[in-house]
Amino acid sequence: MNIRPAVSTDDEAIWAMLEPIFRAGETYCLPRDISRADALAYWSGGTHDVFMAEDDSGPTGTYFICPNQQGGGAHVCNCGFVTAEAARGKGVARAMLAHALETARNAGYRAMQFNFVVATNTRAIAIWEDNGFDIVGRIPGAFNSPQHGYVGALVMYRQL
Amino acid sequence: MNIRPAVSTDDEAIWAMLEPIFRAGETYCLPRDISRADALAYWSGGTHDVFMAEDDSGPTGTYFICPNQQGGGAHVCNCGFVTAEAARGKGVARAMLAHALETARNAGYRAMQFNFVVATNTRAIAIWEDNGFDIVGRIPGAFNSPQHGYVGALVMYRQL
Repeated sequence: MNIRPAVSTDDEAIWAMLEPIFRAGETYCLPRDISRADALAYWSGGTHDVFMAEDDSGPTGTYFICPNQQGGGAHVCNCGFVTAEAARGKGVARAMLAHALETARNAGYRAMQFNFVVATNTRAIAIWEDNGFDIVGRIPGAFNSPQHGYVGALVMYRQL
Repeated sequence: MNIRPAVSTDDEAIWAMLEPIFRAGETYCLPRDISRADALAYWSGGTHDVFMAEDDSGPTGTYFICPNQQGGGAHVCNCGFVTAEAARGKGVARAMLAHALETARNAGYRAMQFNFVVATNTRAIAIWEDNGFDIVGRIPGAFNSPQHGYVGALVMYRQL
């Protein structure tokens, strides 16, 4: 598996990976009917640096990394990860996280924080915990899941 | 004390209240050298509804209220509060919080969340706790305080 910085010609592949996840509405706090343009702006806009994971079959995942806050909070980074549906269960998320942790260290960040991990996203939570993230916050009823109704969200954090 | 929706002619008064707080850099995650335009965009832009507190002497505080997340997180609101330096210790923050809780209930929000309360901001934390907010997260070393170095940040939350 190769992971490299995204370029503008990756937009179609990124949208193809984001669309089913955002439409399902189970893990990201976005309108389920978000447009392609708004979704790509959310993923790649502002201070986000975007990466693509790919293997011989094509794109397998994408992630962004950005400062979690400005000013006095800019030493902590944030990331978002999406694995292509066809590539699930192949270790794509673990590989992207390892790449993100290395990218973050090289950029001088002191910690990585996930602000809103939906409590039903147990696969992601297990991967983050396996990789040194602690649950530092539990927000009750913070997410209205299409499938499960109101569920909690976790704040997860690790030093670098 | 009167609290009312802000209008565009309040910008100068809002900036006069924000500037010393943002320049001090002890409570908000913003660049300490933020411009007036960027500060007003941060306070009043996007989905923020802004209110002004005032008494016979003039403006005493300002707050915004907005959805804390989009999509499945849009039932939780977020707020920011600033009290004019000359009006500290007069119950302005408590009055604005009470107004914000009522505004949030009327807008149909189910909860209010503060994502990043700097742990050294003990006066604010005491007011939020007195008014039913729980500390649901503690993020170690999340804030680089000009006065205190790396300190924690709290996630605070209450149902409405």
